[in-house]
Amino acid sequence: MGFVSKRMVYAGSPIREDEDLANKLAKEGKEIIKLNSGDPPKFLPTPEYIIEAYERALKEERTYYANSQGAIELREAVSEYYRRHYNADFDPDRIIITQGISEAIAFVDAALIDRGEKALLISPYYPAYVSYIGLYGGKPVFIPAVEEKGWSIDLDALEKTVKKTKKAKYLLVVNPNNPTGSVLDRKNLEEIVRIAKDNDLFLISDEIYDEMVFEGSFTSMSQVAKGLPYLLLNGASKTFDATGIRIGYAILPEDDEKSNQLLRSMIRLALLRISANTPAQYATAYAMSNVAAFERSVSQFREEVKERVLFTAREVNKSQYMQAVVPKAAFYVFPKLKMEKLNVKDDKEFVTKLLQEKQVQLTRGSGFGSPNHVRFVALADKETMSLAISKIEEFCEEHAR
Amino acid sequence: MGFVSKRMVYAGSPIREDEDLANKLAKEGKEIIKLNSGDPPKFLPTPEYIIEAYERALKEERTYYANSQGAIELREAVSEYYRRHYNADFDPDRIIITQGISEAIAFVDAALIDRGEKALLISPYYPAYVSYIGLYGGKPVFIPAVEEKGWSIDLDALEKTVKKTKKAKYLLVVNPNNPTGSVLDRKNLEEIVRIAKDNDLFLISDEIYDEMVFEGSFTSMSQVAKGLPYLLLNGASKTFDATGIRIGYAILPEDDEKSNQLLRSMIRLALLRISANTPAQYATAYAMSNVAAFERSVSQFREEVKERVLFTAREVNKSQYMQAVVPKAAFYVFPKLKMEKLNVKDDKEFVTKLLQEKQVQLTRGSGFGSPNHVRFVALADKETMSLAISKIEEFCEEHAR
Repeated sequence: MGFVSKRMVYAGSPIREDEDLANKLAKEGKEIIKLNSGDPPKFLPTPEYIIEAYERALKEERTYYANSQGAIELREAVSEYYRRHYNADFDPDRIIITQGISEAIAFVDAALIDRGEKALLISPYYPAYVSYIGLYGGKPVFIPAVEEKGWSIDLDALEKTVKKTKKAKYLLVVNPNNPTGSVLDRKNLEEIVRIAKDNDLFLISDEIYDEMVFEGSFTSMSQVAKGLPYLLLNGASKTFDATGIRIGYAILPEDDEKSNQLLRSMIRLALLRISANTPAQYATAYAMSNVAAFERSVSQFREEVKERVLFTAREVNKSQYMQAVVPKAAFYVFPKLKMEKLNVKDDKEFVTKLLQEKQVQLTRGSGFGSPNHVRFVALADKETMSLAISKIEEFCEEHAR
Repeated sequence: MGFVSKRMVYAGSPIREDEDLANKLAKEGKEIIKLNSGDPPKFLPTPEYIIEAYERALKEERTYYANSQGAIELREAVSEYYRRHYNADFDPDRIIITQGISEAIAFVDAALIDRGEKALLISPYYPAYVSYIGLYGGKPVFIPAVEEKGWSIDLDALEKTVKKTKKAKYLLVVNPNNPTGSVLDRKNLEEIVRIAKDNDLFLISDEIYDEMVFEGSFTSMSQVAKGLPYLLLNGASKTFDATGIRIGYAILPEDDEKSNQLLRSMIRLALLRISANTPAQYATAYAMSNVAAFERSVSQFREEVKERVLFTAREVNKSQYMQAVVPKAAFYVFPKLKMEKLNVKDDKEFVTKLLQEKQVQLTRGSGFGSPNHVRFVALADKETMSLAISKIEEFCEEHAR
């Protein structure tokens, strides 16, 4: 690399790695169906009450630096949300507002990972988690979810890896999962909590898709982890259908030594960057506190997302070139490519050639730790999605082995 | 520290370190004069055309993820600003939009500093620069500005330190300076450029206060560094009197190997956190492009700031307990405490006791690398500032040696 640091090999994103090519094709006048970025406002407009909440924040001239840990009004609204939804009792002083969950992830790894230290993750994983661990000199250790069993976690394998991995700093679960759309049930969560407890392991639960579970109620880590040191991550971007406002929450509910050390460290990292966007913080607080509008529009949004995701899964599964576990939550469909039928080298080549030849942009599964898969953002309307899938089918036919 | 990483000793901020005490006092019903945070909207309302630009961005539903490098409309507006003000020709593709300059600083050190590597800074310095270098395992090397000569840089001392410090990754100048309010003239800048050139040293110029120079025109590094690899940092927060919108710009104007490596690395770090707040990016683009309103209100804001800063400096310099170089720019007055006349241990004790006893909140100079100084945010109106200074004078009398 020369001038830049060695850690730069860990920077980047598989989700946006083909943007230059996409932009080039767009400049040539080609229309691209972009199904790579989990960005709902590109498909379904942000609800009006959120825009109005943001406008209110501006009318009130919330243009100064907020408290570094987060505006107290927003931390109280987050606490109130957890009380309402999960009967949880979170002290607003144990909540940190971040610039999207991305910043919370960066804070966690900066605060916990010394050079050479390990962190445990389920694969497939959200790519930024692995990048930030690497940037801070750590080593991810993966427990593969079992695709054949609906992307469930093999708890015996998990326990074995936990016991084998000395001094892992944390075990991360992303639940509901991106990219697989799987959801852990209460029994699974309780087992994970038991394993963490038995092995003195810090737990992190990323629940950014908690409102995007298609059937039945979602069990949050906060409902089963009482007494255990753990960190909860969530945020407004996905639930609010307003990704561009970049508001995440990090919550350390328990008053124990590990939780307190991490809380203090994350606050000190937050001090360094002064403040997250202040009007967005107040917008989020006001929108969350507008309970009727919030519940109504989240529920409408969830129904719409569910329909689109399940439609996509059905259509994908008609193909003889790929097969997906039907998702239970979130925005994605994550099929396995039947590589034996395809004359492409790997998922990376599949994705890049598909973009070049058919102007459909997916993300390669290897970016999530699952080679030979692709991730669809399943938020496009049925017409667009049908068109995309028929183009993909054409592509597969043209590259059939 | 135990659970958290060793690098956490570098996290934190001297500017906000007494917030807990300040909040406690406020809860007890005490009124605090807060002169610690360089946050103009707390004193002077954000101009209406900026609020309107932000509202326009919301009306247009700019609530999706922006391009990770920054919305092209904003990068074009920044380029246009530099053309207008500095006759510079910056390719928008060489501009990165960040979540405040803070994020740009974090990106730069992540991208450039490997463990044990050095970076050269003028002291007094803005604290976050030193924190981020430490967080990424680097070592800052300081060249002290000379207070007796109006906080000017001793160019001989600079050149000696540059030559002595093998393989420093960069030399940073913050110009106009925070906390001293000093400004480098063209001759000084040309000498710095020559020293950088002679020693193959990468230059970083933080010019966030470029619009806040009280007399005469400001010379930007971009006007003298042609042909040299360098990075320019700036942002909307201070100029716009809207700190809470958190929009910074990082510009790598030159098409050389070092600049290109750093540009690519910063873009990859930006990809990792997906996007800065999108409505704020469009708000900034629209406000910058509203040239008449922009120029008029920046000029009004500058006049008002100048009056307040010079008033504060005059009043401070009436005290027999402290003496400040009169600032030429920015928001601050940075006097030296006459410790021989005071019965306090150091500037930290001075600041904390002053807050406790008189409810005036300053920042300790040691946080900027200059012990026995204090930083005033000189943005309060004259009445408030007079009251604060008379309380400080009382405090000094009560603690006179």
